[in-house]
Amino acid sequence: MPLTDDQLAEIESQRQSGATTRRATVPALEDRLYRAIPLLDHGFIRVIDYMGDDGAIVQAARVSYGRGTRRVSEDAGLIRYLMRHRHSTPFEMCEIKFHVKLPIFVARQWIRHRMANVNEYSARYSVMDREFYIPAPEQLAAQSAANRQGRGDTLQGEEAAHVLALLRDDAARNYDHYAWMLNEAPDGTAVDGSRQGLARELARMNLTLNAYTQWYWKTDLHNLFHFCALRADAHAQYEIRVYADAILDTVKDWVPAAYAAFADYRLGAVTFSAQMLAVLRRLLAGEAVAQAGSGLSKREWGEMMGALGREKA
Amino acid sequence: MPLTDDQLAEIESQRQSGATTRRATVPALEDRLYRAIPLLDHGFIRVIDYMGDDGAIVQAARVSYGRGTRRVSEDAGLIRYLMRHRHSTPFEMCEIKFHVKLPIFVARQWIRHRMANVNEYSARYSVMDREFYIPAPEQLAAQSAANRQGRGDTLQGEEAAHVLALLRDDAARNYDHYAWMLNEAPDGTAVDGSRQGLARELARMNLTLNAYTQWYWKTDLHNLFHFCALRADAHAQYEIRVYADAILDTVKDWVPAAYAAFADYRLGAVTFSAQMLAVLRRLLAGEAVAQAGSGLSKREWGEMMGALGREKA
Amino acid sequence: MPLTDDQLAEIESQRQSGATTRRATVPALEDRLYRAIPLLDHGFIRVIDYMGDDGAIVQAARVSYGRGTRRVSEDAGLIRYLMRHRHSTPFEMCEIKFHVKLPIFVARQWIRHRMANVNEYSARYSVMDREFYIPAPEQLAAQSAANRQGRGDTLQGEEAAHVLALLRDDAARNYDHYAWMLNEAPDGTAVDGSRQGLARELARMNLTLNAYTQWYWKTDLHNLFHFCALRADAHAQYEIRVYADAILDTVKDWVPAAYAAFADYRLGAVTFSAQMLAVLRRLLAGEAVAQAGSGLSKREWGEMMGALGREKA
Amino acid sequence: MPLTDDQLAEIESQRQSGATTRRATVPALEDRLYRAIPLLDHGFIRVIDYMGDDGAIVQAARVSYGRGTRRVSEDAGLIRYLMRHRHSTPFEMCEIKFHVKLPIFVARQWIRHRMANVNEYSARYSVMDREFYIPAPEQLAAQSAANRQGRGDTLQGEEAAHVLALLRDDAARNYDHYAWMLNEAPDGTAVDGSRQGLARELARMNLTLNAYTQWYWKTDLHNLFHFCALRADAHAQYEIRVYADAILDTVKDWVPAAYAAFADYRLGAVTFSAQMLAVLRRLLAGEAVAQAGSGLSKREWGEMMGALGREKA
Repeated sequence: MPLTDDQLAEIESQRQSGATTRRATVPALEDRLYRAIPLLDHGFIRVIDYMGDDGAIVQAARVSYGRGTRRVSEDAGLIRYLMRHRHSTPFEMCEIKFHVKLPIFVARQWIRHRMANVNEYSARYSVMDREFYIPAPEQLAAQSAANRQGRGDTLQGEEAAHVLALLRDDAARNYDHYAWMLNEAPDGTAVDGSRQGLARELARMNLTLNAYTQWYWKTDLHNLFHFCALRADAHAQYEIRVYADAILDTVKDWVPAAYAAFADYRLGAVTFSAQMLAVLRRLLAGEAVAQAGSGLSKREWGEMMGALGREKA
Repeated sequence: MPLTDDQLAEIESQRQSGATTRRATVPALEDRLYRAIPLLDHGFIRVIDYMGDDGAIVQAARVSYGRGTRRVSEDAGLIRYLMRHRHSTPFEMCEIKFHVKLPIFVARQWIRHRMANVNEYSARYSVMDREFYIPAPEQLAAQSAANRQGRGDTLQGEEAAHVLALLRDDAARNYDHYAWMLNEAPDGTAVDGSRQGLARELARMNLTLNAYTQWYWKTDLHNLFHFCALRADAHAQYEIRVYADAILDTVKDWVPAAYAAFADYRLGAVTFSAQMLAVLRRLLAGEAVAQAGSGLSKREWGEMMGALGREKA
Repeated sequence: MPLTDDQLAEIESQRQSGATTRRATVPALEDRLYRAIPLLDHGFIRVIDYMGDDGAIVQAARVSYGRGTRRVSEDAGLIRYLMRHRHSTPFEMCEIKFHVKLPIFVARQWIRHRMANVNEYSARYSVMDREFYIPAPEQLAAQSAANRQGRGDTLQGEEAAHVLALLRDDAARNYDHYAWMLNEAPDGTAVDGSRQGLARELARMNLTLNAYTQWYWKTDLHNLFHFCALRADAHAQYEIRVYADAILDTVKDWVPAAYAAFADYRLGAVTFSAQMLAVLRRLLAGEAVAQAGSGLSKREWGEMMGALGREKA
Repeated sequence: MPLTDDQLAEIESQRQSGATTRRATVPALEDRLYRAIPLLDHGFIRVIDYMGDDGAIVQAARVSYGRGTRRVSEDAGLIRYLMRHRHSTPFEMCEIKFHVKLPIFVARQWIRHRMANVNEYSARYSVMDREFYIPAPEQLAAQSAANRQGRGDTLQGEEAAHVLALLRDDAARNYDHYAWMLNEAPDGTAVDGSRQGLARELARMNLTLNAYTQWYWKTDLHNLFHFCALRADAHAQYEIRVYADAILDTVKDWVPAAYAAFADYRLGAVTFSAQMLAVLRRLLAGEAVAQAGSGLSKREWGEMMGALGREKA
């Protein structure tokens, strides 16, 4: 369980607070507010705040004086139009803030998305928790033979057991040495009075990349969709994909019309290159096209046939 | 008055809506929500939505599980510390959205602040309103003799009258020709059935730069402060300064502790260069320093003496 | 001709300068440097500086110590892979800077691309040139009946003549009044000694939106491609499209491999939504699908059939 | 030594390349191109490419047709004016690209500067080098008692020795286990044919935060100055400060006039708050002011007296 009793109590107390607001409010998201969705072995995401709803997208696109909404179906139609024609700015009018707990190596991928606001827990200033990510056995994958940055079969037997033991022991030992170097009791006094203790900003370097960190992360809906398009994708590393999937699940509750448009025009959509389009026209004309004479590489041919639900041969 | 009766009714109806929320809520800002603050002759700003409050800054800086707040005085102290040491990311955790109506030449300065989300009323798609900014007589200033991008004395008499007449007549005539070229009745039919009407995206080029446009503008508190530091400054053009001042006034209601820190450490603060610091040390040592031997240019010397409340001689 | 003799001489003198450099250098782009490509009636773009070439994309993607290039074909293959899989950061490693002269209403669309560096000629500080965009007769289009933000047929006869006369006369008159209000001779003295002259920052508001402005604009290749994907598109307004087309033409000389990948995977590519993919599978299975039972709107059906080169019926 | 002989040879071969260019060229920076400046125990920075010089700042500020430069002294004056009045966009017209090798915990601070382009060596795709940062003995500092995120005295004797041994052993052991889990010989075959080897994207999580990574990093001069103002500051962690210092040293060769302005108006400048200004005026009026009645906190008082070169009592 990623949260202590004290933390759970703080969260529940915050959930009790209620105020009246004139702002756009989404009951389904209010219901989720503050509560942690557990991810991986010690991580979570929880929604801390949000601004706007489906109506806010429409309101901004129309630069309207009131709520901007007309009939629900008309609004959904406009949102689909905006998504299809890549009008990104109306989606930027919705904003969401998460508290995220995640392994450092995942945080390092995540932070590459620059269009977001981030406050990370500071290991210069504070002591890190003794928590590290250890993959579940079914996630312990071999290097993919086909793809230099993918996963292959799951490790088995002794090799799997040994890998898990190494990950566990190394993370634990390194943390214990980190704590020893800090020489700092919970009340801030020295554990061993004969030692000074190493500065926090230095001691942290002994931690492993599967140590958990946490941050407040805030972004707008357009950039959130972009993050999810890349990180909820099958090519993304599993450990960040679980976060992207949980975020998408939240978005579905928050802005259902925008989510549906995103699902149709991005997640479920496929882009065909100029060469693929040429192949498609030949196929539709009834021609039998093979990879050899297609102008596509084997990999592209495979991707295209996969998208069309056809045999790759 | 910048708003029609229909628009006022839409706004009032939106103000009637109320919902319960678990989010951070600021009563003083709720009270302002949606209502237009008139600016210049036809412009306004109105707050459409907001996320966060003073507590949200503290909560993010501490990456805390609950509200983050301790005693109000402790929070204010942390906020002052963050502002003083230029920790910008906690201030990015608050977000605000405005609906702004403003002359196009002001919009062109404003848009140079890139760290914001904007949806502008589209003159490709819609017909512009017949409204233009005409300066009040006391704002009709001559070119400054001292400063190539500033204003000098107010124009008087015939010259002032003629300038106002030109601005008024040219804007009105150009708008009327714009409307004639469009050839479009309010219901979308042609005014003159024998003419096709020019495309909106072309006709708009006949409008003057004092025509009013409007947009939804959303940014975070850090970037809002940066905008205000530059645009509420005495060197900013009056016509954008009135917007920055009205925004600051709103910020004061929204995040009073952050506003106070901004007022002390930015608005009311002065930066002394390395050379100015050297002069300051000599002055404090009781030395009589004159501009000539100060290492400062006349302009810098004047700025420094002004900041210290001293004679410039 | 958009340039004076003095400006042409300045440009030619800059072109004479030559230095030896260890940096990546592209002869075809060197050949274009500084020279203005005329666009519209008084506008232009000219390349002022650039950083990187096709090899720099590869070098960064591999984080290599040397030039990064292997065989040209291998590099091109990597660039195509990066483009296909939307790896944007290697393309950000190339940077280009343009000097652009363009009508203000075009500048207002252009500036919405925030990921760029811009220095615009300041009408607060300087006097604007007496130049405005007047569309060529074949560009004088009526409002599109089908598309609220597009163009229809070209205006003809008297209507066309009258529109052109209005655009010309209004721009000229407004400029002349601008100049009168400034009351400023080329040497900075007053034209009429009995008048003070209106401040430049105010007088400019009398100009029309087809007045020409100019700026230095610098961006990276990834954002340049994004700009071109939106602005060289058939849906973009003609007056900005001519700039995007000229930029693309320059890019072709600068980074030919990246340009080719962009042409295949963006410009010439089509994205099919989830619903369109379903239709595609049915078509490939030999089914006769009509718009009615397709799950697509008429507009989407039309777009899809257009992309496939089929009858829309 | 951070570079292998092969890498040094690649670098030297790149340095031999020379081409003629019409672009702004800075001989002092050309001389540094590609060569690594060693930092910490295994890190470095090296300049890979650059765009612009002091003249390019002036050229953009003036939106000029030619080189933009007049007399050198006039240009330097304009650059100082731009820096003093926080005109940031002309400085954005210069761009520089570095190849940087740095410990991961430093990379994590660095990446928080979002306004830059980055390509990092991918541990999903490639195998990391066996290199980790071990502080020099004089950098092995205790936690500061006065400042929660600073360093105090240097550790001595046994404690120091033990800390160094722990850092060294843990990093080495974790790397060796990382290599064992990968089970991958330099030629890509398995070391132990009976094992599959863990996917690279998983094995990397066993590395410590002092492992070295590397990236290509590109930014403009304005954002570079901002980075240096924060990271070359006395409050920055030593391990990132050495990089910021080395960058500043490079900037001095590249754009000497801009560097001088930055040194005077940022690095060597001090900002006094509204309250500090009030104290300053009282001091200059000859009043004896003590912290107690100053309106400043002890910390602020100390900072102010330090800036003025006065006793803090």
